[in-house]
Amino acid sequence: MNLILIDPGEIQDSRVLLTDQRARHIRKILRSQVGDHLRLGIIGGSLGQGLVLHLDRDTVLLELHCSTPPPAKAATDLILALPRPIMLNRVLAQATAMGVGRIMLINAERVEKSFWQSSQLRTERLQAALWQGLAQAMDTQPPVLTLHRRFRPFVEDELPPLTTHYPRRLLAHPAPAVTAADAPAPGRQLLTIGPEGGWRDSEITAFTSQGFQFFSLGPRILRVDTAVPALLAAAGR
Amino acid sequence: MNLILIDPGEIQDSRVLLTDQRARHIRKILRSQVGDHLRLGIIGGSLGQGLVLHLDRDTVLLELHCSTPPPAKAATDLILALPRPIMLNRVLAQATAMGVGRIMLINAERVEKSFWQSSQLRTERLQAALWQGLAQAMDTQPPVLTLHRRFRPFVEDELPPLTTHYPRRLLAHPAPAVTAADAPAPGRQLLTIGPEGGWRDSEITAFTSQGFQFFSLGPRILRVDTAVPALLAAAGR
Repeated sequence: MNLILIDPGEIQDSRVLLTDQRARHIRKILRSQVGDHLRLGIIGGSLGQGLVLHLDRDTVLLELHCSTPPPAKAATDLILALPRPIMLNRVLAQATAMGVGRIMLINAERVEKSFWQSSQLRTERLQAALWQGLAQAMDTQPPVLTLHRRFRPFVEDELPPLTTHYPRRLLAHPAPAVTAADAPAPGRQLLTIGPEGGWRDSEITAFTSQGFQFFSLGPRILRVDTAVPALLAAAGR
Repeated sequence: MNLILIDPGEIQDSRVLLTDQRARHIRKILRSQVGDHLRLGIIGGSLGQGLVLHLDRDTVLLELHCSTPPPAKAATDLILALPRPIMLNRVLAQATAMGVGRIMLINAERVEKSFWQSSQLRTERLQAALWQGLAQAMDTQPPVLTLHRRFRPFVEDELPPLTTHYPRRLLAHPAPAVTAADAPAPGRQLLTIGPEGGWRDSEITAFTSQGFQFFSLGPRILRVDTAVPALLAAAGR
């Protein structure tokens, strides 16, 4: 944790009283004392420092001094076929740390139905993953995260009006013969990454018919926690 | 596991008898039957299929038919400050899956000394991580992995003769102001990634004085299991 993250709703008179794992982190890992300054950030707001006013076994009281703007977001948004639960939070934290602005988790034929029942999809776990990525990268702006449990309504109804915001639309597809995508252009780009077993042909068509270009790192099949950072980095910006 | 990996020493008369977790994987996950064909690869050799000749509670007997060459390795080798033990195997598997030819794990001032005592550095665990990456990416050629427990002897004695093999030498450094590296050129490239806390200035000088250029994805601080695939992908090839 490179940053203690505070929700704006927790702040009263420029102070925050922490009683959860952040308090434990400050005591046990950072071993802070009264008078120390800690790096912190306000979700959706600024970065700065927290002065430790009081600290005991269960609580930490901080005075906030935050005025540094967070880093710019990447110009890339992500459509991701829902990964297996054991990978989900790791991948959300990775994409968040890399500055992705929006993450849409979608269904696909090769996404196992049971993945949508996972407790990892509980709001508080998803938020924890995003906060972990923010704290890692010293950012305060979580990506907008949405879940889309049905493929067809997503690609047919929700995607078309979205595409106009993205001059560059990329469909990751690990095949040796796919063409390379254009170089990055001004404006945002939208990168789509499929399920472990790959896309079905009809799913590929649903994207290519909406102007998505194939984008590949080559024929190697990568695990989702390798593919996501690698494809985001290769897509650039 | 996209591939069952076989060590050449295990093969007798084009057959192999598996009794370890590969046998369990074939029975429990793949649910194979006698007569089925499995994707397999011979370490350092070819890819192909294994015909299930016999299968019982503890063993699987396969007949090998392997003649497909493995995928080409990437043109990139990696110098990596030893990551914390909980990350090490994951990162080795990631770099292996992405086709890195050689991985040198080195010391640095901000590598905790205890990391070098970890049981994760046992030969069999390191090999298991490499094999996991190979099986993921359907490759059979493990990277050459070496450990360098002292920084100065590595950069002063071992690195200089190596550099001649690498026309492009990159030093990852997450700072906003570093210059972008040249575009990839013919020949191999050597990418160096530092410890979580970053390099010390004297360590940076040790690399830049040997022709390493700064290389960065921007100011965001990434965890090593995000930074390694992202930097490898951004470095290209």
